[in-house]
Amino acid sequence: MTELELVASLRRRGQGIGDDCAILPSPASANDLLLTTDLFIEDVHFLRKHPPEQSGHRALARGLSDIAAMGGDPKWCLVSLALAPWAGPRWVERFYDGLLALARRYRTKLVGGDLSHAEKVTVDIVVVGSVPKGKALRRNGARPGDGIYVSGALGGFPRLPEPRITLGKALRAQATSCMDLSDGLSIDLHRLCIESQVAAVLDRPLPIAPKATLEAALHQGEDYELLFTARKRITEATQIGTIVEGPPGTITLFGSNLQPKGYDHFRVGQARGLRRAPSPPKSRK
Amino acid sequence: MTELELVASLRRRGQGIGDDCAILPSPASANDLLLTTDLFIEDVHFLRKHPPEQSGHRALARGLSDIAAMGGDPKWCLVSLALAPWAGPRWVERFYDGLLALARRYRTKLVGGDLSHAEKVTVDIVVVGSVPKGKALRRNGARPGDGIYVSGALGGFPRLPEPRITLGKALRAQATSCMDLSDGLSIDLHRLCIESQVAAVLDRPLPIAPKATLEAALHQGEDYELLFTARKRITEATQIGTIVEGPPGTITLFGSNLQPKGYDHFRVGQARGLRRAPSPPKSRK
Repeated sequence: MTELELVASLRRRGQGIGDDCAILPSPASANDLLLTTDLFIEDVHFLRKHPPEQSGHRALARGLSDIAAMGGDPKWCLVSLALAPWAGPRWVERFYDGLLALARRYRTKLVGGDLSHAEKVTVDIVVVGSVPKGKALRRNGARPGDGIYVSGALGGFPRLPEPRITLGKALRAQATSCMDLSDGLSIDLHRLCIESQVAAVLDRPLPIAPKATLEAALHQGEDYELLFTARKRITEATQIGTIVEGPPGTITLFGSNLQPKGYDHFRVGQARGLRRAPSPPKSRK
Repeated sequence: MTELELVASLRRRGQGIGDDCAILPSPASANDLLLTTDLFIEDVHFLRKHPPEQSGHRALARGLSDIAAMGGDPKWCLVSLALAPWAGPRWVERFYDGLLALARRYRTKLVGGDLSHAEKVTVDIVVVGSVPKGKALRRNGARPGDGIYVSGALGGFPRLPEPRITLGKALRAQATSCMDLSDGLSIDLHRLCIESQVAAVLDRPLPIAPKATLEAALHQGEDYELLFTARKRITEATQIGTIVEGPPGTITLFGSNLQPKGYDHFRVGQARGLRRAPSPPKSRK
């Protein structure tokens, strides 16, 4: 079972994993609430040897990036923390130092959580955001003729990724669809095209991070940049191609078919958050 | 470091873990939102050999019980799921069968989540609820002279715990404080008394589940009943004692001092959700 197949199955059960956040309508308010939850697990998303401040930053950045992808303003967060025997008070303090420094910069208030223990340190971050009613950016609005854009540069595996909150808010009025690049351009663009029932042509130079390879820019993931489509030209990001009619989810890269090879949680036995260079292709199957 | 000490430390950092849910004020609305997040981890909260439907039920019941403890109505839930290699599509289907059956009974809509992998199956459940503005039940309102009550029976380790949503809502107008019994009466009452800066006298028979021991009723946890205080007599629950002035957190049981011995995640090396009978006292230290 691949992640896409599992998501399809869960969606049939009523779980709409289509977008980066759930949208909670609040009838009496001028805003919709956005809600996202992200697991952050030792030996999957981070290692014990990583600086705890960096792990705290990255745990929260994943959730903030989901809010950015929907064009939202982050408001509150909750942290569920299951500690392993090795993670003492000093690790916890430094983990929160990193997490709260990022939270403060985006005016996100830590309001609760849960504590337990586990063999591996296991964190779940919930972020609640706000977006003007009906204005949340979705994955399903891309239409043939739209430009395809990415923010920043890809494949660089930033240790302290910066959530694109400001850009996401600016895109509310401009983008036709949006998501964040967490698993890699090839699989994330594939997902966006599936949601929008369109195909994609990539025929412009990709913004590749210094020292990164094309392979990393296409498939590595953990970029936390925004991938979006727009009808009019956008200057704050790089256009990399165009949405076209075609078999939903199909991507053409400079004339060749591009297979979605990004990070699929159900095909990979390898730990995440550990990769400086792209993994060999066989580990992605 | 004990859980109480860690919670005290996190609270100094701004994380208000004092109540069962975070309260999100929504200025334009007649209701406050309640938000709770609970980890549910293989070999900590459940075992691979447990029926998957039961695990799904219990994962969600923890979150619904937190909403009940605040007097709320559950509205939405999100499920973050990290699957271990052993957990195939059939396990996932049956886990969701159990979870969604409970969700339907309490009109809670599954609206999103996250998927990843881990060595052990790791679930985080987020539940969003609603409560009339300012009416959420808290832990800090118990006052000397209030009766101390519990719903249902204690120590029975129910396999399919029933969240006390209806009772919680009825208590909005009656209880002075409330929480759910997840870690055991002795430690949970201790926590409530600390939050309210009061002491407790238990001088009435406890409602002990059939075949359960007094030890289990006091310390075992996983009851998911409501523990609350009220000024007037409540008929839907059992009065077990009275709030008194005294050193905050102190509990007297039939004249003797009762130490909080319930489940503390940072003193226990033992898996949870596995206990039919109470563990030997030394495992709780």
